[in-house]
Amino acid sequence: MGKVICDITMSVDGFSSGLNQTEERPFGDDGGDGSGQRLHAWMFDTPDENRAEIERLADAGAFVMGRNMFGPVRGGWDREWNGWWGEEPPFRAPVFVLTHHPREPQPMKGGTTYHFVTDGIEPALAQARAAAGDRDVLVHGGAHTINQYLAAGLADELRLHIVPFTLGTGTRLFEGVPPLELEQVSSRPATLVTHVTYRVLS
Amino acid sequence: MGKVICDITMSVDGFSSGLNQTEERPFGDDGGDGSGQRLHAWMFDTPDENRAEIERLADAGAFVMGRNMFGPVRGGWDREWNGWWGEEPPFRAPVFVLTHHPREPQPMKGGTTYHFVTDGIEPALAQARAAAGDRDVLVHGGAHTINQYLAAGLADELRLHIVPFTLGTGTRLFEGVPPLELEQVSSRPATLVTHVTYRVLS
Repeated sequence: MGKVICDITMSVDGFSSGLNQTEERPFGDDGGDGSGQRLHAWMFDTPDENRAEIERLADAGAFVMGRNMFGPVRGGWDREWNGWWGEEPPFRAPVFVLTHHPREPQPMKGGTTYHFVTDGIEPALAQARAAAGDRDVLVHGGAHTINQYLAAGLADELRLHIVPFTLGTGTRLFEGVPPLELEQVSSRPATLVTHVTYRVLS
Repeated sequence: MGKVICDITMSVDGFSSGLNQTEERPFGDDGGDGSGQRLHAWMFDTPDENRAEIERLADAGAFVMGRNMFGPVRGGWDREWNGWWGEEPPFRAPVFVLTHHPREPQPMKGGTTYHFVTDGIEPALAQARAAAGDRDVLVHGGAHTINQYLAAGLADELRLHIVPFTLGTGTRLFEGVPPLELEQVSSRPATLVTHVTYRVLS
């Protein structure tokens, strides 16, 4: 069986998005335009330097993501919206989206199918594990979703991309998660980020 | 004029000590024995690998530290206690201790003198700058002290030693500090820690 990996970018003070997320500004008050470009400048501005970490974001047998990660906070996304990744998303595997809105599976070009799971993180993970077979399941965030998996003891690995600013408020990674014992598996500096991978020991 | 450098070890969720600090357990509920050995395992268990970062902790023209960093939270430290570093502290320079308890300067062996400053972070820094001359001033923590310097815009550089566990509660770095723009100057992985140095841009 593969691992359950959580992967997220956070400010050095632990936030993965700012307050006041809206449809137009899905990352809220993130010190930039709210698009997430600031938090993810390491991907957008220095892709070559971070190729391995970027490719790893789409390298799993199945994916889990929270509702806000999939689509805008408000609006009719649950009927019309097909995610931020366009007609041919990079996942090329099943993606299980946590939501309160039932919806039929949404196949996309290139092998990605979005499945909408309304009964919580454990059923979503069970479906993702079944779909992934021997491969890993990647939990894509946001922080609220990852916190639930960490708190439930369901994550094997945590990949953090720590970026050089603080937000002070917003959605905080580790909020409500009991203390974790981690093992630093790897740590790699790049110009706009430090990548750290932890094994979750307890 | 030298830089004002803040240097601190924090858990990956941003805490530099746990709750319930006492004289016997100065780091409080830190998931270990409260002595700080757990947070600073990178120093104690792997000193050779982290020699440069350890030496840098005592390499400045003057030092500033908070009251809790100097001595136990309770007790008669302000009259009898001479800090955690023994009779010959490694600083070999003036150390300005922030406190509410006036006390005469305390010279130690090897060139360290503890000065007790009762009128706040700015006078402490002014004295430290004057003593340091062209050399750097190192603000040693704890987080509460560093947060005050960051919030006041008085820090030029922030050195973090990010260790692989979470505490969930305690004294949090960046608490109450307005959002900071940082530049990642260096980042270095070691077995039990990731060292990251940031320039404070705003």
